[in-house]
Amino acid sequence: VSRAELVRWLNDFLRLDTYAGADLSMNGLQIEGTEVIRRVAASVDTSVKTLQHAADSGADLLLVHHGLFWGRPLPVTGPHRDRLRVALMADLNLYAAHLPLDAHPEVGNNAMIARALSLQDVQPFGRVDGHVIGLAGELPFEQSLQDFADRVQKLTGEICLVHGGGTPTVRRLGVTSGKGADRIAEAAALGLDTLLTGEPEHVHFNDAFEYGVNVVYAGHYETEVFGVRALAARIEEEFGLPWQFLHHPTGL
Amino acid sequence: VSRAELVRWLNDFLRLDTYAGADLSMNGLQIEGTEVIRRVAASVDTSVKTLQHAADSGADLLLVHHGLFWGRPLPVTGPHRDRLRVALMADLNLYAAHLPLDAHPEVGNNAMIARALSLQDVQPFGRVDGHVIGLAGELPFEQSLQDFADRVQKLTGEICLVHGGGTPTVRRLGVTSGKGADRIAEAAALGLDTLLTGEPEHVHFNDAFEYGVNVVYAGHYETEVFGVRALAARIEEEFGLPWQFLHHPTGL
Amino acid sequence: VSRAELVRWLNDFLRLDTYAGADLSMNGLQIEGTEVIRRVAASVDTSVKTLQHAADSGADLLLVHHGLFWGRPLPVTGPHRDRLRVALMADLNLYAAHLPLDAHPEVGNNAMIARALSLQDVQPFGRVDGHVIGLAGELPFEQSLQDFADRVQKLTGEICLVHGGGTPTVRRLGVTSGKGADRIAEAAALGLDTLLTGEPEHVHFNDAFEYGVNVVYAGHYETEVFGVRALAARIEEEFGLPWQFLHHPTGL
Amino acid sequence: VSRAELVRWLNDFLRLDTYAGADLSMNGLQIEGTEVIRRVAASVDTSVKTLQHAADSGADLLLVHHGLFWGRPLPVTGPHRDRLRVALMADLNLYAAHLPLDAHPEVGNNAMIARALSLQDVQPFGRVDGHVIGLAGELPFEQSLQDFADRVQKLTGEICLVHGGGTPTVRRLGVTSGKGADRIAEAAALGLDTLLTGEPEHVHFNDAFEYGVNVVYAGHYETEVFGVRALAARIEEEFGLPWQFLHHPTGL
Amino acid sequence: VSRAELVRWLNDFLRLDTYAGADLSMNGLQIEGTEVIRRVAASVDTSVKTLQHAADSGADLLLVHHGLFWGRPLPVTGPHRDRLRVALMADLNLYAAHLPLDAHPEVGNNAMIARALSLQDVQPFGRVDGHVIGLAGELPFEQSLQDFADRVQKLTGEICLVHGGGTPTVRRLGVTSGKGADRIAEAAALGLDTLLTGEPEHVHFNDAFEYGVNVVYAGHYETEVFGVRALAARIEEEFGLPWQFLHHPTGL
Amino acid sequence: VSRAELVRWLNDFLRLDTYAGADLSMNGLQIEGTEVIRRVAASVDTSVKTLQHAADSGADLLLVHHGLFWGRPLPVTGPHRDRLRVALMADLNLYAAHLPLDAHPEVGNNAMIARALSLQDVQPFGRVDGHVIGLAGELPFEQSLQDFADRVQKLTGEICLVHGGGTPTVRRLGVTSGKGADRIAEAAALGLDTLLTGEPEHVHFNDAFEYGVNVVYAGHYETEVFGVRALAARIEEEFGLPWQFLHHPTGL
Repeated sequence: VSRAELVRWLNDFLRLDTYAGADLSMNGLQIEGTEVIRRVAASVDTSVKTLQHAADSGADLLLVHHGLFWGRPLPVTGPHRDRLRVALMADLNLYAAHLPLDAHPEVGNNAMIARALSLQDVQPFGRVDGHVIGLAGELPFEQSLQDFADRVQKLTGEICLVHGGGTPTVRRLGVTSGKGADRIAEAAALGLDTLLTGEPEHVHFNDAFEYGVNVVYAGHYETEVFGVRALAARIEEEFGLPWQFLHHPTGL
Repeated sequence: VSRAELVRWLNDFLRLDTYAGADLSMNGLQIEGTEVIRRVAASVDTSVKTLQHAADSGADLLLVHHGLFWGRPLPVTGPHRDRLRVALMADLNLYAAHLPLDAHPEVGNNAMIARALSLQDVQPFGRVDGHVIGLAGELPFEQSLQDFADRVQKLTGEICLVHGGGTPTVRRLGVTSGKGADRIAEAAALGLDTLLTGEPEHVHFNDAFEYGVNVVYAGHYETEVFGVRALAARIEEEFGLPWQFLHHPTGL
Repeated sequence: VSRAELVRWLNDFLRLDTYAGADLSMNGLQIEGTEVIRRVAASVDTSVKTLQHAADSGADLLLVHHGLFWGRPLPVTGPHRDRLRVALMADLNLYAAHLPLDAHPEVGNNAMIARALSLQDVQPFGRVDGHVIGLAGELPFEQSLQDFADRVQKLTGEICLVHGGGTPTVRRLGVTSGKGADRIAEAAALGLDTLLTGEPEHVHFNDAFEYGVNVVYAGHYETEVFGVRALAARIEEEFGLPWQFLHHPTGL
Repeated sequence: VSRAELVRWLNDFLRLDTYAGADLSMNGLQIEGTEVIRRVAASVDTSVKTLQHAADSGADLLLVHHGLFWGRPLPVTGPHRDRLRVALMADLNLYAAHLPLDAHPEVGNNAMIARALSLQDVQPFGRVDGHVIGLAGELPFEQSLQDFADRVQKLTGEICLVHGGGTPTVRRLGVTSGKGADRIAEAAALGLDTLLTGEPEHVHFNDAFEYGVNVVYAGHYETEVFGVRALAARIEEEFGLPWQFLHHPTGL
Repeated sequence: VSRAELVRWLNDFLRLDTYAGADLSMNGLQIEGTEVIRRVAASVDTSVKTLQHAADSGADLLLVHHGLFWGRPLPVTGPHRDRLRVALMADLNLYAAHLPLDAHPEVGNNAMIARALSLQDVQPFGRVDGHVIGLAGELPFEQSLQDFADRVQKLTGEICLVHGGGTPTVRRLGVTSGKGADRIAEAAALGLDTLLTGEPEHVHFNDAFEYGVNVVYAGHYETEVFGVRALAARIEEEFGLPWQFLHHPTGL
Repeated sequence: VSRAELVRWLNDFLRLDTYAGADLSMNGLQIEGTEVIRRVAASVDTSVKTLQHAADSGADLLLVHHGLFWGRPLPVTGPHRDRLRVALMADLNLYAAHLPLDAHPEVGNNAMIARALSLQDVQPFGRVDGHVIGLAGELPFEQSLQDFADRVQKLTGEICLVHGGGTPTVRRLGVTSGKGADRIAEAAALGLDTLLTGEPEHVHFNDAFEYGVNVVYAGHYETEVFGVRALAARIEEEFGLPWQFLHHPTGL
């Protein structure tokens, strides 16, 4: 498929226009490479390593959740220069989707996790920069906090950090991928007993205990592998392009 | 000592006037309690638990690194109400010092760590909101990254997370307490081989490896116990007040 | 009634969601007290005196037009500390409604005054921070400026200050409670002959005479007793709670 | 004297360069009239009336405390057009000095009042937009609040509004001309027992009583006649120009 | 016609309300003159000369594209004073319409040019401060860039500057009057081969060649004579007022 | 010389630290190329053409006045991608100096022009974003405006555009390279009879005539060739590196 057509389809499918202004992550095509896309790679982050890996794997486009830009211009020096050089040398396209890929109802990180946990009666939850990106709902059956954490661990393959500030059993759950510890108050206000998110923060440590909400931290990286994989699969479905997930975990 | 006199001395000793505007943490007296201070408690964070602990221990003033306010007014509801209620019921004074206690040349978190590691030829390092709060310098002898991490672990009592992006041995070190992963680029520009800081962040994971700098993460909490303890000891020296450190680790 | 239910009803009745961002007065529950509300007090302003008066009168919730916060965090010291202490000691709830209570079509300060003066063909008037909070309309009969001022005086019980910049008789009137002298130009543009507002300001003295509009200043306090009283009465109607108005005039 | 020379002298004498950016009142020459200045008029405010009065009195330059502009461009319509028309028809120059004339050590409103009250050990007091414009000091002898208010009344010729929130006698006094009720907290922090200012504000009514500070409100207009008169006298001294004060009180 | 009625009609016809906030040019009546309008003058710019010319020609209202104010208050000195003085002396009204007169579908600069060039399938093009003010479309027949430039020259009477960065023939054209060189990227993204605009800018010189778009610069002044003339003609149609165009070209 | 050393020397020589924040042009190394610099190219602007020309000429570093960034991050697509690709492929370093190279006392555009015209008693003139970048002074002898324009034409090799708003002869001159038409008012206030600058702007056309100042427009490009050439020569002097000026005029 031509790059122009694929980019148009992605911009439309992810509804990038509704995120203009709100999201500093410059969603969309960040590096322009070959004009025809035959093979796709997907990765959570952008680094010299992931770009090189994508190029080595023969991909024409790398799809990422975290791109290169966060609101400020960067001189083309140091690691930023290395990243651009790898991509431009290999004529690799880079497409980034941040909040649009957290919040997407079909392939979004939170929609994927909610579906994997069979969450019911889901409603929007988790406001970030004027957009609600997460979901809240009911587990199909009540289970102990420990059993729930084990289930999450099976889903991600990594051990969770658990702050048991709430009830011993889990029933009403909020899900926000990535860095969501600042939404504990919002979870309490909604009457949720448990919040599942990615990365812990010292500054929000007491919130779990003072607001009386359980928090299960499953990892920033681990909660954000879902979106790019689902999006790549959706591209395959639409355009028949083969794809590959490049696993570069951070342990964070 | 009278509260008025102690607060005046603290404001002066910590040079709060030089942080006006730059620091949203509202440095200084945050809750007004009894007029006479006979006993001091010190803690890294402010929570219902630390305030209750301070009140129960008979302290008239709780000295903290992280206070109640971060730039926005808070309704007196939920945990914030519980915190204020505990302090006001017990007539407890709360005094907070954030950046001034990171950066202080005598009792600051970074000065204390640099001294414990016998750092030499120290220079300012680590810009935050227009203030340079950390230090950089030379270790008295070169040692392997693993040996250096073990030494840090002995200092804090907690295991470190090590990202070995730089040289196998440590010689030129930067120290920034708390959340300092965003200063890896600054460390590289200064030619440091290793950065010692507190809390890791997913978004800066690749920096260690792409800038070629070792990063030793010793914990946000663990790197910030030094300042409040040293400041309380300094108050004892000046005014003869007994004091106690309230240990409420977060593991983060 | 439970606090949660009453607060939900108030937020909804006053349509607080439409004022988010525009109003710095932190509309809504500002201090959390007892969970069950059995008795309500209403007051224009919040002060140590009004809070103590409310507590002494056995109220569980104090309803005010001017609350504690105006966009900036306050250290819990001095009078602010005294206010919080009185409320927290008495487990008193404090609920504030500023612009929403000026502008409310049923119980708003301006709607109440307009009704008391039998204003006809009313239309929105008086823009403040993006919200139109006042009303303009026709008096049922023309009367002299002096007679009109006497009628206002009967309504509020206080002498008015009159700046007769316009026609000798009053027919088309604008009403904006509180501090509304900055809306004289708007009144002139709408073709009103008279503006009724609360507090005069030196900086707008010449406007009455240069724009040719009569201005009747009936007092900031006196023009804002209507809303909280009407709202408390509305609560009684809805939930059967007894209430009391706490009269603490300022003479301004 | 030529307008150019007089304006240069005024800009320099009032140190306008130190107020750039901080003061929205566009200090300096606001309307350009005749090139030679033979006669000066002085007034607190700018209005159609004061401009016409100045022109009728044969003045070539009107000196005011409150000019035409406050940070925003104004269409040349309504009263603003009338003001410009009067001045331009009469070739009248208009020179405005706001904060520089509150704060001036020799001819400033506050320096003049402090001198009239024989204030001793004066220090800066009263921060406005980054500039300290008022003064604090000791009265030469303690007197009752009532006696002090009578003395102020003799100075201005108008009755004062007194809010007796502090001690019954006056000794340590702060002076800020104009609208200074928002500086009651600053007065309390400095240990002043009494604040003398101009215009009361409903929103600061409780401050006097809760901070325990007496406030004497002598009128916005009445506390600001001193500066323009003293400046005009100073011009006469320097350049030998006759001058006249145009008294247009507002009662506010 | 009365000024009030004509201004109301103009504000409505030009839909000024939709430009509030976005346009710093203070659209609408900028100087208030006589109350009855009998004769209209139209000019692209406002200067001492155009105002004097309008007054001398017996006009009661001068209609301009570029008015007096651009977001900041101006002291009434120098040329700004001269402009106001000429208008106020002659009781001349000044009405300005900037973006509303670029973008108007009937009398706008761009609509007029598009019609003169018989542009077909027109769509909005050329975003300025949140408003799309220009048009893009197809020429009825393909022609060489030189022939197209000649045609534009016939329309304006002035020689064009041509930067031939695109295809040798012109078919898909974008039109933005005035200073539109910063929209070359937008033209390329829309697939236009040629952009017709007014004033060149050094900073955008390379854009034509690097984006591969032809740019025909027909002059800032020359591309903006259309709107004020068409609007004046429309006023004549509506109110029967005679009018005259005041030609003061700048060559830019 | 090593890139690190040369960049350090340039940053220091041009005093980049004093322009931090004020200048959005990201002064300094914008693209990192080879580590050793053997040959330098200099150009006014950065374009695909100038970068390719520099690479083809064997330069290791291209020195420019206008770089790639102006305050906002750019996606690596279209011409921006082409520019980065050319430079990164060729391992070319790009160093930009905007305001620092207008204002430099030795090699700055304005200092060079002032010296070429033998300007005497020079003083700072021409404020841009908080920095004064130009110069004003006396010509050694009075000459007619036409003769002066001819002399400027000889200096730049291009015909000047002359707006004769001032006196027929030139004596007191202001010089601001680039886009300086917005400084005509400043020139008048300083008593200059003539302003020499680069690029005309329609919006400032009337200023020359209404402020009574002659303006000689010598071209944005033509007035900014001096700085980069002088800086390259200075580098040759310091480090013995050969250099070449790449002439890519814009005619603007």
